[in-house]
Amino acid sequence: MLGRMLIRPAPAEDWPAIWPFLRRIVAAGETFTWETDVTEDEARLRWFPPPPGRTFVAVDGGAVVGSAVSVRNHRGPGAHIGSASFMVDPDHAGRGVGRALGEHVIAVQRADGFRAMQFNAVVATNTRAVALWRSLGFEVIGTLPEGFRHPRHGYVGLHIMHRRL
Amino acid sequence: MLGRMLIRPAPAEDWPAIWPFLRRIVAAGETFTWETDVTEDEARLRWFPPPPGRTFVAVDGGAVVGSAVSVRNHRGPGAHIGSASFMVDPDHAGRGVGRALGEHVIAVQRADGFRAMQFNAVVATNTRAVALWRSLGFEVIGTLPEGFRHPRHGYVGLHIMHRRL
Repeated sequence: MLGRMLIRPAPAEDWPAIWPFLRRIVAAGETFTWETDVTEDEARLRWFPPPPGRTFVAVDGGAVVGSAVSVRNHRGPGAHIGSASFMVDPDHAGRGVGRALGEHVIAVQRADGFRAMQFNAVVATNTRAVALWRSLGFEVIGTLPEGFRHPRHGYVGLHIMHRRL
Repeated sequence: MLGRMLIRPAPAEDWPAIWPFLRRIVAAGETFTWETDVTEDEARLRWFPPPPGRTFVAVDGGAVVGSAVSVRNHRGPGAHIGSASFMVDPDHAGRGVGRALGEHVIAVQRADGFRAMQFNAVVATNTRAVALWRSLGFEVIGTLPEGFRHPRHGYVGLHIMHRRL
């Protein structure tokens, strides 16, 4: 599948293909610190931030199967730290979409001159994501205890993850 | 001095008294991850966030000597985590203004139902702030290596600090 998958910048016209799975992921309330009932307008604003924010999609067989947003994590004297968010259509999970998006964003942020990347809120029970980021060179540099209220597991930790670029 | 100092909610009319020392602190580039040349309009928007954000000032002898902003640190399933920012007029440093503001915001966030507070970016060389937050029950739960470019010390760590409420 990876041979056929394309990662490309996402114009605003891609939003209708992103929103159905983004909404599903956010509504589940298991992995994102977003309001589970976020409106479509608010979600679109967050997923298409102004520059230096960049939005990407993973396209497979003509279908959008995942998306990523690359942003600054801090400003001013911390503006050399990037961050990113990732959504993979659950119907296409386990097929390397997240890894391909992650590798792409790492390369983009390195090219943009960021010195490191930081994820602020990786839910500790999202073991697939934690394992993916570890395999891409990220480390947990701290865990916010009981930072996330999981619908089944209750209060669980939020990992802060980091890698140099 | 503490006996005379008042901490109160800040209406927008307080901004002209806050901006001179806020600008001075931000321009120094030693403690805040803000653009050192932030415009007044942008700074005001950040310092007076919409609800549930709250802004406070410390008033001593009729003069505004410090200010704090109480915000949510995360949303949705992480909305029980608060955060805050503090600015103390350097001309009034070392007189308990930051401590009084800190104690006030801790009490406000507890009353607002937050379960914990998290600071995302405490500059490691800002030893006065780190010591103040430790004395108020915060712990460093992680440090972003080289997360902050200090004008004299070069790249230094950014502490993530936490306390339960």
